Amino acid sequence: MNLLLKEIRHNKLLWLLVFVPLVFAAEMLKPEAHTMHFVLSVLAIVPLAALLSHATESVAAKTGDAVGGLLNATLGNLTELVIALTALRAGQYMLVKASIAGAIVTNSLFMLGVSFLLGGLKYHTQEYNRVSARMQAGLLFLATVALLIPSAVSQADSASTAAFTQKLSVGLSILLIVAYGMSMLFSLKTHREFFASAEHGEGGEEGHGATPFPMGLALATLAGVTVLVAMVSHVFVESVQHAAETFGMSQAFVGFIVVAIVGAAAEMASAFAGARKNRLDLSVGIALGSSAQIALFVAPVLVLLSYVLGPEPMNLQFWPGAVVMMLIATMAASLMTNTGRSTWFVGMLLVMVYLVFAMTLYLLPPRGQ
Amino acid sequence: MNLLLKEIRHNKLLWLLVFVPLVFAAEMLKPEAHTMHFVLSVLAIVPLAALLSHATESVAAKTGDAVGGLLNATLGNLTELVIALTALRAGQYMLVKASIAGAIVTNSLFMLGVSFLLGGLKYHTQEYNRVSARMQAGLLFLATVALLIPSAVSQADSASTAAFTQKLSVGLSILLIVAYGMSMLFSLKTHREFFASAEHGEGGEEGHGATPFPMGLALATLAGVTVLVAMVSHVFVESVQHAAETFGMSQAFVGFIVVAIVGAAAEMASAFAGARKNRLDLSVGIALGSSAQIALFVAPVLVLLSYVLGPEPMNLQFWPGAVVMMLIATMAASLMTNTGRSTWFVGMLLVMVYLVFAMTLYLLPPRGQ
Amino acid sequence: MNLLLKEIRHNKLLWLLVFVPLVFAAEMLKPEAHTMHFVLSVLAIVPLAALLSHATESVAAKTGDAVGGLLNATLGNLTELVIALTALRAGQYMLVKASIAGAIVTNSLFMLGVSFLLGGLKYHTQEYNRVSARMQAGLLFLATVALLIPSAVSQADSASTAAFTQKLSVGLSILLIVAYGMSMLFSLKTHREFFASAEHGEGGEEGHGATPFPMGLALATLAGVTVLVAMVSHVFVESVQHAAETFGMSQAFVGFIVVAIVGAAAEMASAFAGARKNRLDLSVGIALGSSAQIALFVAPVLVLLSYVLGPEPMNLQFWPGAVVMMLIATMAASLMTNTGRSTWFVGMLLVMVYLVFAMTLYLLPPRGQ
Repeated sequence: MNLLLKEIRHNKLLWLLVFVPLVFAAEMLKPEAHTMHFVLSVLAIVPLAALLSHATESVAAKTGDAVGGLLNATLGNLTELVIALTALRAGQYMLVKASIAGAIVTNSLFMLGVSFLLGGLKYHTQEYNRVSARMQAGLLFLATVALLIPSAVSQADSASTAAFTQKLSVGLSILLIVAYGMSMLFSLKTHREFFASAEHGEGGEEGHGATPFPMGLALATLAGVTVLVAMVSHVFVESVQHAAETFGMSQAFVGFIVVAIVGAAAEMASAFAGARKNRLDLSVGIALGSSAQIALFVAPVLVLLSYVLGPEPMNLQFWPGAVVMMLIATMAASLMTNTGRSTWFVGMLLVMVYLVFAMTLYLLPPRGQ
Repeated sequence: MNLLLKEIRHNKLLWLLVFVPLVFAAEMLKPEAHTMHFVLSVLAIVPLAALLSHATESVAAKTGDAVGGLLNATLGNLTELVIALTALRAGQYMLVKASIAGAIVTNSLFMLGVSFLLGGLKYHTQEYNRVSARMQAGLLFLATVALLIPSAVSQADSASTAAFTQKLSVGLSILLIVAYGMSMLFSLKTHREFFASAEHGEGGEEGHGATPFPMGLALATLAGVTVLVAMVSHVFVESVQHAAETFGMSQAFVGFIVVAIVGAAAEMASAFAGARKNRLDLSVGIALGSSAQIALFVAPVLVLLSYVLGPEPMNLQFWPGAVVMMLIATMAASLMTNTGRSTWFVGMLLVMVYLVFAMTLYLLPPRGQ
Repeated sequence: MNLLLKEIRHNKLLWLLVFVPLVFAAEMLKPEAHTMHFVLSVLAIVPLAALLSHATESVAAKTGDAVGGLLNATLGNLTELVIALTALRAGQYMLVKASIAGAIVTNSLFMLGVSFLLGGLKYHTQEYNRVSARMQAGLLFLATVALLIPSAVSQADSASTAAFTQKLSVGLSILLIVAYGMSMLFSLKTHREFFASAEHGEGGEEGHGATPFPMGLALATLAGVTVLVAMVSHVFVESVQHAAETFGMSQAFVGFIVVAIVGAAAEMASAFAGARKNRLDLSVGIALGSSAQIALFVAPVLVLLSYVLGPEPMNLQFWPGAVVMMLIATMAASLMTNTGRSTWFVGMLLVMVYLVFAMTLYLLPPRGQ
């Protein structure tokens, strides 16, 4: 517990934890102040995500490489998963899908781009392990195909029935989870020597000079903070629509950009810090690894869980604009990382592509009904 | 003739030749048993394709490199060509097009992917000549553009008249055949040193330890087996629709997946054997070379022949879903082969992309009319 | 002035200057002879463009690297800019957009492809600096995304209002100009050592053995010839529609292919000469640099200027077929240049892709209203 307090004193991001009780207070005292709920819940999720990430790392560090890698790979995007599950239970499938697509796009363009940009402003050129980047890009390519083909094929035929989409979504979800499992087998077991320095980077937070929690504290934090994230997410999901209207933002912009950046704030802090320390393998690993994890693990798990938790089954059919953005993000990340060398200019290009998306979504008129 | 029997004894695939007379018997005795016709004709085409392929190799081996390469390059997909011609004469243009698109997708995803997978399960990493892979990928890119642009441009304008599509198809067909001719000039003549080990691989079947046929036997086999394939294809094409209904498979699935795998069975056997012997140049050459040949030679030749043989001219305009699949297959093959190095994971990714397609087509509801 | 005459004697292309007075004569004496106006104005623009290009180079050579690079980078496509401005003032936005898209496609497929082809017919293989090619390809990728996303997103929603498209176009234009400025900062300032041999190539015309003009003459030529180009462009833009009808060419073909080739004739001469002298860096730099300049500088500047000069604001929303062609051209240029090595076959492939476009546009039936 002392260690927890020490970690909080040490890591300034965690001072934001003060907003967690404020969220619940605001919800009870001012149930109609949606914009305030929104702002407070955003501010509260950021430090909770950081804490969750640190606890996951601590457990992973204790359990040895294979189990640790597995843990990191399944719990690494726990924040996104919990937010999405909350939206899923509320039946807000459009928000769930927007946040999935937004997380993929934000991680592979914005997180990667800003990492290259920040690193490039300090170092003339930076090198990183491109085998790892290639594997993640390959996984993202597969996931994008899986999300693209159903709509490409069924639109063309205009014979897409709900039953077809639903059966296909379940099948594709299982396929994606299997592919994700294979990628862990490949990187943690059969060809782990390829990932030498990327693996080094995986021990994320110690880059911050943070001490890992002992096992008991780590597990308790994991459990307790997950519950807190779920509770805050509940407020966040309820208030996000109202807030969007207040700020004059389109719903697409909120789902794609705001939720994605809030959910990934803790990982971004790690990725950017890695880039400034010339440990680009860490940054590339977090940015692309996180994208791949959301596309091949979080999204299909949500589809399968929707049968148990949601009011009705969710499918994998995305809004065509979202599919195009995911496709472009995957292509951009793949093109820009295949040399294993980066400069500020490469980062600038990735960020610019992201700005094109953000600007388009921001200006998008609300759907006409 | 003795040699032919010896080859049959040696190569277990050829034992399936017993199904050739059974097809004709079944057609005469039970003219309504379409599903049986279908199964028997599939089983009969596989060994005939293997024999055809062996005979082509034998002639090629005798005639020296340039002519031999030319022969291989024009007769290498004789089975696909004969099946497609049979469907063409029956006016079944949808089946012709599905089998063309399916062959391109199946060869560049499934054949290539399983080769990498099988090779990768035996060897930790495998290397191959990427110049050859690049050339084939470039040709496939050109072919995909040629198939994509007409529909992209005319759909957009909704001013596509039949006359436009037809004239354009003839023009593009000639362009593709010219490009294919240029690729042979490049690989067999002006820059043959780039293809050193790929050329080694081209002597296909000897990888099986088979003895080449003498010239007379080879030519006789070529002629006789082509006639047999044509006759069996006739039964196959007539029964394929009925069989699809019986097995509950969509027509798209049959054309894309079943016909493509049946037509390429013999080449797959060679490609997979090559991969298991660490001769990946052979496998990549067969898989991508075959795709390029179908896209730039078989398909345009069918368009031109449709003026002579078909009930009406055939065009090059494909179903949009098929164009998207060909585009993705080309991109995937291009991305995955540009390092010249493979592991089981790369193979797994390619096979997964293929499974996404197969699953989508399998579940696709029948067109609604 | 003597030097100007010497340059004209030396460079046979400039003999075409005799057509400049003929254009004006024809316009006054035979105001209805549109086809003759068209032919004469095409023949007059080509030498004016060459002269403009030479004057720009001369000023650039005098002012030192940074300013010179800047000048080259802003005035390098002055001909295209003046033609487009003339069409803009006439409110012919479809022609403006077709000429922008056509210039991008023509430069990155035809100019690059013919350079590789001509170089490859003389030299077995040629090498060039691929860092520079990569940067230009990255910029083109960004520009294509900026042109693609608005229509992808708004089509999907069918909620695209004119106001949305207009606001977005202004925003994207500013973004593209900023990105273009960044690329100059990168290549001329922070990472200029990467562009070593490409920079050498930038001194364009001296490859022709031409003497640079002294400052005064260069500036006078720049001013005078710009006025002449504007006047001839006026005739060209007025006659182009009539001429298209006379020659039986679709409007899309004229805008995309004819205008683009006329506008870039002078640069093509330099690029092809460079390739024949085994100075491929020069050719690749001109071809891709020119494409990037039109996409990230000329096009957005035209959008912003349309608020001042045009009858109504112009947007960045292109005809979907044009977007697909730009996307394919960018992908092709990017795929074909990422090895830094070329042969005649690579050039042939690029030219073939261009021919697919040209043939499609040529056969395209006129829009049906």
